[in-house]
Amino acid sequence: MPNPPGLITLLTDFGDQDSFVASMKGVILTINPQARFVDLSHQVPPHSVDEAAYLLKSCYRYFPEGTVHVAVVDPGVGSARRPLLVTTSRYYFLGPDNGLFSYVLMDEDEVEVREIENQQYCLKPVGHTFDGRDLFAPCAAWLTKGTPPSSFGQIIHDPITLPIVQPSRQGNRLVGRIEHVDRFGNLISNLTLQHLEELHSVMKHRQLSVRIGEQIIEGLVVNYSEGMAEQPAALINSDGRLEIFVKEASASDLLKVGKGVPVEVS
Amino acid sequence: MPNPPGLITLLTDFGDQDSFVASMKGVILTINPQARFVDLSHQVPPHSVDEAAYLLKSCYRYFPEGTVHVAVVDPGVGSARRPLLVTTSRYYFLGPDNGLFSYVLMDEDEVEVREIENQQYCLKPVGHTFDGRDLFAPCAAWLTKGTPPSSFGQIIHDPITLPIVQPSRQGNRLVGRIEHVDRFGNLISNLTLQHLEELHSVMKHRQLSVRIGEQIIEGLVVNYSEGMAEQPAALINSDGRLEIFVKEASASDLLKVGKGVPVEVS
Amino acid sequence: MPNPPGLITLLTDFGDQDSFVASMKGVILTINPQARFVDLSHQVPPHSVDEAAYLLKSCYRYFPEGTVHVAVVDPGVGSARRPLLVTTSRYYFLGPDNGLFSYVLMDEDEVEVREIENQQYCLKPVGHTFDGRDLFAPCAAWLTKGTPPSSFGQIIHDPITLPIVQPSRQGNRLVGRIEHVDRFGNLISNLTLQHLEELHSVMKHRQLSVRIGEQIIEGLVVNYSEGMAEQPAALINSDGRLEIFVKEASASDLLKVGKGVPVEVS
Repeated sequence: MPNPPGLITLLTDFGDQDSFVASMKGVILTINPQARFVDLSHQVPPHSVDEAAYLLKSCYRYFPEGTVHVAVVDPGVGSARRPLLVTTSRYYFLGPDNGLFSYVLMDEDEVEVREIENQQYCLKPVGHTFDGRDLFAPCAAWLTKGTPPSSFGQIIHDPITLPIVQPSRQGNRLVGRIEHVDRFGNLISNLTLQHLEELHSVMKHRQLSVRIGEQIIEGLVVNYSEGMAEQPAALINSDGRLEIFVKEASASDLLKVGKGVPVEVS
Repeated sequence: MPNPPGLITLLTDFGDQDSFVASMKGVILTINPQARFVDLSHQVPPHSVDEAAYLLKSCYRYFPEGTVHVAVVDPGVGSARRPLLVTTSRYYFLGPDNGLFSYVLMDEDEVEVREIENQQYCLKPVGHTFDGRDLFAPCAAWLTKGTPPSSFGQIIHDPITLPIVQPSRQGNRLVGRIEHVDRFGNLISNLTLQHLEELHSVMKHRQLSVRIGEQIIEGLVVNYSEGMAEQPAALINSDGRLEIFVKEASASDLLKVGKGVPVEVS
Repeated sequence: MPNPPGLITLLTDFGDQDSFVASMKGVILTINPQARFVDLSHQVPPHSVDEAAYLLKSCYRYFPEGTVHVAVVDPGVGSARRPLLVTTSRYYFLGPDNGLFSYVLMDEDEVEVREIENQQYCLKPVGHTFDGRDLFAPCAAWLTKGTPPSSFGQIIHDPITLPIVQPSRQGNRLVGRIEHVDRFGNLISNLTLQHLEELHSVMKHRQLSVRIGEQIIEGLVVNYSEGMAEQPAALINSDGRLEIFVKEASASDLLKVGKGVPVEVS
């Protein structure tokens, strides 16, 4: 693991109307004045651990080695739920033990999970309602100062993971689900290029048929501008996932479809 | 007062759809390319000086010594209202003289308030409608470059302060009010741990009774996860204040209660 | 053109609920760990190229020389529309060829426009749906590392520009239109101080009459606090443009007027 370059990403459900995020940054800068931040998102719907886990998965890999990713969506703050430090071969992750790191734990090799027990790295007195500021922020700052992971606490082997629903294959058909609706109303499924390749060869994508709700979409296009006005279309998006969209409009609004809805490819 | 480390926080009611905040940052970086920013919040409701004063109070102390806190909620921009530079033993504050710094002036020792008169540190020509960009931003940049406070203007002794309503004590009862509704719908009062300690000893918190609107809450809990679904509960929050919440839901929505509503503890 | 100071502004329609912007920043920091960001705005309405062009115009000049301005509002992503690098005597601009830089091309001298053709500076494999992350972000990072513009591609002479509606003069009357409604509901027109000076001398502003919809406003004021409650008033704003406002309220709501509505001055 390389030395942390002082780069910290922040992912929370704190929104932007309060000063919660600013307090975290102030605490970090007080410990490490050289720290720098990238806001991953603070508009996770309140308490929505699965949404945060999805967002983290979709972008943590784009950051430089040694980046500290802090994720605080934490309905159990102050309870017995454990605060975690996860290290992989490239990154550090800090956040509560509630499933936020499910995809990281599933996708990464060389994962080490520790429970943060050492109060020395926390703000004193540690309160019971804002571990983002009092615990995760100072720990992130100390990590970027070179404090080794082992100083924070013992390795644990039973971190909580979300039940991640994998697509199912029934003969000629793949059944997945919508995992995320983005800002444009695009519907992003858990069906990946790999899944589709198993079904057919990539060269035959245009012969695929995608069913979502009442709607059947014949074939895939390559980019958004190939879509037709007011007609849902499908493509493989920038994360390698099957996505249903409507050209310059919201597929979610037009199809009245949201997270969790099944998508069938045949 | 230590040398400013080049750290500037920004608190405005400018929102995030326009380029107002970016213009301020561009002006600052043109004067001091080493300046760094933390956005405190830009979602203060338009013209809401008291809300901004509350947000500033809730987080300015978490920043490193020498931080320059810029607050621009400024309905009187361009009028005779004075632009201020406030210095305390640890921080600098820049903003209009309209009460934004009421809590700072009340809580801090060694406070010096100056009217910014020296046009030399302003963008030229100074307009009449955007002092955030034309006056406060450049003054913040010059402060971080080491310009001494005395260069900006004379000390004044009559800065405007908001009428801050203090809780009242009537025998066995304390009456305060809701001062802030946060992003989660939590209701944050002006009753502090200290107020409650005066009423009872801390150890007896669980015997306290909190009345808000028609609702009576018996006893305090320690963290959010101790609340019951759809039941308002109360705790001492991370700022040491009495807060009414509903577990993983909005107390403000459930109780139909907002800012200014009385809270009674007995 | 000075060396880029590593400063990159970002203007998109990506919003703040997804991790699109964070991905771009991660890609940039992986290439140039010294890069620093200012978010211009990410709340451009989806696909609204003209709104983004307006925002860019309103603030790019406030940044230090050498700043790289990245603008990604890109309904045509992945199609034949060209990715551009625009250089002026002071700045770099990166974004799709769809009119985003119309005002820059109109207002700046010494403008050079290149089509980005060199795949070497792109993330591999380049997808078809997220050029912000896969193409514009890495090109911005390489620019800040000193890669000369000529390395990215050939000069072109036919960039797309938006049809910019100029005010028209009919004898004693100037007819312009509302170009932007800001966060406060202020109505910002395309009539500038220069236009008005042509009509009258500045000294006589108070004799001007402004008509918008059914409303006639007599004379200009100098700042917002001179307005009367619930009465629309007009001033020359911080960008030198005629702006209609209502003191501490939304002119757009009160007058039920938005973008594109004519404004007449006589």
